[in-house]
Amino acid sequence: MDQKLIAYLGPTGTNTEQACLLYDETAKLIPCLSIPEVFGKVNAGDAHKGIVPIENSVAGSVSLTLDLLIHESQLYIRNEVVLPITHSLIVSEPVDLSEIKLIYSHPQAIEQCRTYLAKNCPNAQIIASMSTSSAVGQVMSDRYGSAAIATQRASELHGALVLVEGIEDYKNNMTRFVVLDSHDNVPTGNDKTSICFSFDGDSPGILHSVLAEFANHHINLAKIESRPTRESLGSYIFLVDLEGHRVDTVVSQALEAIEKIVSMLKVFGSYPKHEFKKNQ
Amino acid sequence: MDQKLIAYLGPTGTNTEQACLLYDETAKLIPCLSIPEVFGKVNAGDAHKGIVPIENSVAGSVSLTLDLLIHESQLYIRNEVVLPITHSLIVSEPVDLSEIKLIYSHPQAIEQCRTYLAKNCPNAQIIASMSTSSAVGQVMSDRYGSAAIATQRASELHGALVLVEGIEDYKNNMTRFVVLDSHDNVPTGNDKTSICFSFDGDSPGILHSVLAEFANHHINLAKIESRPTRESLGSYIFLVDLEGHRVDTVVSQALEAIEKIVSMLKVFGSYPKHEFKKNQ
Repeated sequence: MDQKLIAYLGPTGTNTEQACLLYDETAKLIPCLSIPEVFGKVNAGDAHKGIVPIENSVAGSVSLTLDLLIHESQLYIRNEVVLPITHSLIVSEPVDLSEIKLIYSHPQAIEQCRTYLAKNCPNAQIIASMSTSSAVGQVMSDRYGSAAIATQRASELHGALVLVEGIEDYKNNMTRFVVLDSHDNVPTGNDKTSICFSFDGDSPGILHSVLAEFANHHINLAKIESRPTRESLGSYIFLVDLEGHRVDTVVSQALEAIEKIVSMLKVFGSYPKHEFKKNQ
Repeated sequence: MDQKLIAYLGPTGTNTEQACLLYDETAKLIPCLSIPEVFGKVNAGDAHKGIVPIENSVAGSVSLTLDLLIHESQLYIRNEVVLPITHSLIVSEPVDLSEIKLIYSHPQAIEQCRTYLAKNCPNAQIIASMSTSSAVGQVMSDRYGSAAIATQRASELHGALVLVEGIEDYKNNMTRFVVLDSHDNVPTGNDKTSICFSFDGDSPGILHSVLAEFANHHINLAKIESRPTRESLGSYIFLVDLEGHRVDTVVSQALEAIEKIVSMLKVFGSYPKHEFKKNQ
């Protein structure tokens, strides 16, 4: 069978499922309950690839994904997918905003729409759900007077109705997902490479020496972040996304030089930069 | 009246309330519904200080707090408080683990105990709550067969019972909180300074030049992180926590030199490093 199996952070109707469809609309999608389960399915060969969120422009990095990449997984990042996130107010049938008494959603989605809700539904009771998608299921069983905050796709899947689109307080809300595989991508000429590294002790000069290698090789950094190591609060692992493929001459020279400075260097993979499609 | 008013991310019984009690057990605490509301209360003079979470060792940075500090607030960080986070399984009366049919909590707490739950309560239904504290309230109204994942303090406040302590999958789970005020702290000899900066364009050399100033002045960095600016995906604001007080000679010299390189520099404040108390 040629059809690809992609494990993803479910359930259906979530933004991660949307990222899967954007990445490969012909694949068979396997919803998982948690991010570690997605890694596990790809590791065990139960799926060809896995798709998990890695950062959101409002909520920040998904630390569980970063920590699995750093400490546990031997999988590679083969692609990235960037998805604009919009929240919709979803109901079972046409209703006035003032008639809405109960609003269901995942607390993070509720948090991202707080200003809208305070202004437009000040008297509605807010009820937490395990996912934005399950919130729509609850609304379809409650019917009149209930609403959910979820994706348009969750609305379609449940045969519900989008009452208001784009109710999030912060526009420019994007989530970046990574596609996990047993190997990374071939060079395309427009690539990124994700790495992490750490060093023993906390000499102020070492991070600077590492970044000097990138600067000397004229390599742009797309992202830099630090995570506490699991051993103690004061020691850090640094995560860097840089421009270029690990087999490009300048990148491989810089990585070779850095390997001599740090105590640990792990390359998560090289992959083409996400390009927004016209209809996205 | 001399009693200090401290606004915090509520409700009562949450970890942020615990951080407030650790910081100043004599203050009058004002629970707020959201992080922006805490900033607002301090800004408006309705509270002397505000306490909000800024990073968790498992979940990562609290981006809303960082973004308010970067873009909107003129408040300073006056102190930091670091709190070990443990989750307890809380019930209304003694019960066997196998008798628990419903488990309530905030989805983030549920996520952090997933392995424990899968092993010990595989058949319980998981139900989302808006906060760990409200989950305990629900258990006290459900009674037999329901449990909540929450803090021991939430259990005390509701007259509930801690059935199992420390059910989180990742030990070493710590949250760092910051105390917001209209000014920062005096030098104590064991301080940290939090700053953010950005530059126009994405020359690979500029970040390196900034870090070179710290290295040349032998200033240790406690943390480095990048946040996307709100304008576009490719441009970043860098957040750095460094050792020392902004009035220390080496720190002020380094900041002066950096100001000439960057297009924006904001000092969030200098404050004493958190020290764990013996009974913590």
